[in-house]
Amino acid sequence: MSGALKARVMVKLSAFMNDQQNLSQNLGYQKDAKLLIIHADDAGLSQSENKATIQSLEQGSVNSFSIMVPCPWFYQVALYAKENPNYDYGIHLTLTCEWQSFKFGPVLSAKEVPSLVDNNDFFYKSRKELIENANPKEVILELRAQIDRALHFGLNPTHLDSHMYSLGASEELLKIYHELGEEYKLPIMLNKTLVEEMSGLKDLLINSSQNAVVDQVHLGNYEEFKIGNLSKFYENSLKSLMPGFNLLLIHPAFNTSEMTSITENHPNFGAEWRQIDLDFFTSKKCEQILFENNIQMITWKDIKRLYYP
Amino acid sequence: MSGALKARVMVKLSAFMNDQQNLSQNLGYQKDAKLLIIHADDAGLSQSENKATIQSLEQGSVNSFSIMVPCPWFYQVALYAKENPNYDYGIHLTLTCEWQSFKFGPVLSAKEVPSLVDNNDFFYKSRKELIENANPKEVILELRAQIDRALHFGLNPTHLDSHMYSLGASEELLKIYHELGEEYKLPIMLNKTLVEEMSGLKDLLINSSQNAVVDQVHLGNYEEFKIGNLSKFYENSLKSLMPGFNLLLIHPAFNTSEMTSITENHPNFGAEWRQIDLDFFTSKKCEQILFENNIQMITWKDIKRLYYP
Repeated sequence: MSGALKARVMVKLSAFMNDQQNLSQNLGYQKDAKLLIIHADDAGLSQSENKATIQSLEQGSVNSFSIMVPCPWFYQVALYAKENPNYDYGIHLTLTCEWQSFKFGPVLSAKEVPSLVDNNDFFYKSRKELIENANPKEVILELRAQIDRALHFGLNPTHLDSHMYSLGASEELLKIYHELGEEYKLPIMLNKTLVEEMSGLKDLLINSSQNAVVDQVHLGNYEEFKIGNLSKFYENSLKSLMPGFNLLLIHPAFNTSEMTSITENHPNFGAEWRQIDLDFFTSKKCEQILFENNIQMITWKDIKRLYYP
Repeated sequence: MSGALKARVMVKLSAFMNDQQNLSQNLGYQKDAKLLIIHADDAGLSQSENKATIQSLEQGSVNSFSIMVPCPWFYQVALYAKENPNYDYGIHLTLTCEWQSFKFGPVLSAKEVPSLVDNNDFFYKSRKELIENANPKEVILELRAQIDRALHFGLNPTHLDSHMYSLGASEELLKIYHELGEEYKLPIMLNKTLVEEMSGLKDLLINSSQNAVVDQVHLGNYEEFKIGNLSKFYENSLKSLMPGFNLLLIHPAFNTSEMTSITENHPNFGAEWRQIDLDFFTSKKCEQILFENNIQMITWKDIKRLYYP
């Protein structure tokens, strides 16, 4: 499609958007369609994560992912994203590093964003520490630097989301998240339940005329993992999907020595968990379930086209 | 030993140092002793490198190593160094990143040291690009930031050396290297042959009353590796060691998926090479050769005690 034609189609799509219709209809589906993005978080974190993310895209059912700019393997996955522009990928805005032995910090220097780093110049481990310490101006500076580095690299991201959903953890951070979306004309991943869980607050402003809000986020939980039920949880989630905008968040990686070391003493979203994610979402079974349940795979690119034509 | 006693012993050692005597005698050995440090470079580069470095120290013949502060696995190995202060470790001053898919950049932000980074804010791949672009003031800023971060972390390094021996690649960089050694009161790794090889220049100032110069650096070469002779090269180097200050530089790592990916298209010092280093220097054979050839293992700590008592 030529640039001009593409632009016209986009304007048309945009015009087609109608408040009377729901997201499904605006995307060209039935009103009660079960829309789904299967999204791999944490690309760039490690070699194992990159390799598994790529395998899940090429040979599996994952159809979107997001990239952690401050992480050591950013370059490799960013190059892949640039060379494979058909895939849907966003920026996994990063302000925390939850690991025990493996640490990363801001793209900017510690001196430029002192409120975002611990005593060793790395990101804080928890959302709690982040909220207690972060200066909002420095949050904006650092997140702009992350997005700008990705753009400068030649990336063309489809969305923004947030590592550990830290940007949903306070009203102030949520506001910054909204502003960044509007500034860069990118949809941000918003979900009411997640915001409530992260912030402990109800009714924080998450709606936006500039954005589609995810109706249901599906994320494995530690209880299911502990009893060996993670694949079953994914299976059930897919089989019982409700109509609307669904987002299934996974973290595929190989259970290697690298990944075991990164996730040391952190079985929640640890190396074993991530291998299960990889295995399930590259299985024939998963493909079959998606097909049999009449699930419509959408992407953030589709959302972006609607809201930022 | 109490602090006061230690201080007195150091003063005594220092007084004992005598220009009429050579380094061996100043360290308490016979004049013609074969002194050797077996040194693992590149700690902090990766999980594989860290694990192998630690194994080479604990179960092998490696008795010194150096840490790359800007690299992703700095935190893990720095913590190990801090918790195991008996080991000899230095700062592997880093200004280049030679890898194809795995990139790292300065501790400072790209804005603070623009002359040290490529278009994507990572270090240049080669010494040549570094020399062509680097502003000496920014080199000093970045290297101080690397050392300061290590000191702030609570490390007590025994020496400074230089990744890819970049600091031996020009008179200007060599001067900075010398100045940093004196500023931080740390011996720097100096060797005439290496400086000649890296800079293409003869007779650059490398002597210093503040420093012991390494007589012979032993470093595996690509030709030997290609014909499967790397272990044999190490064996021969040890068996034919000359009297004086010898330094054997190795890069132990496990040949994992992580390491293969880091060293993609770079078999010279690649993942296979590094596994050979690990295997040889944790072998009984190596231990035996050291013993049979009457080799005196010294450390940078010994050198530091002489020059910066």
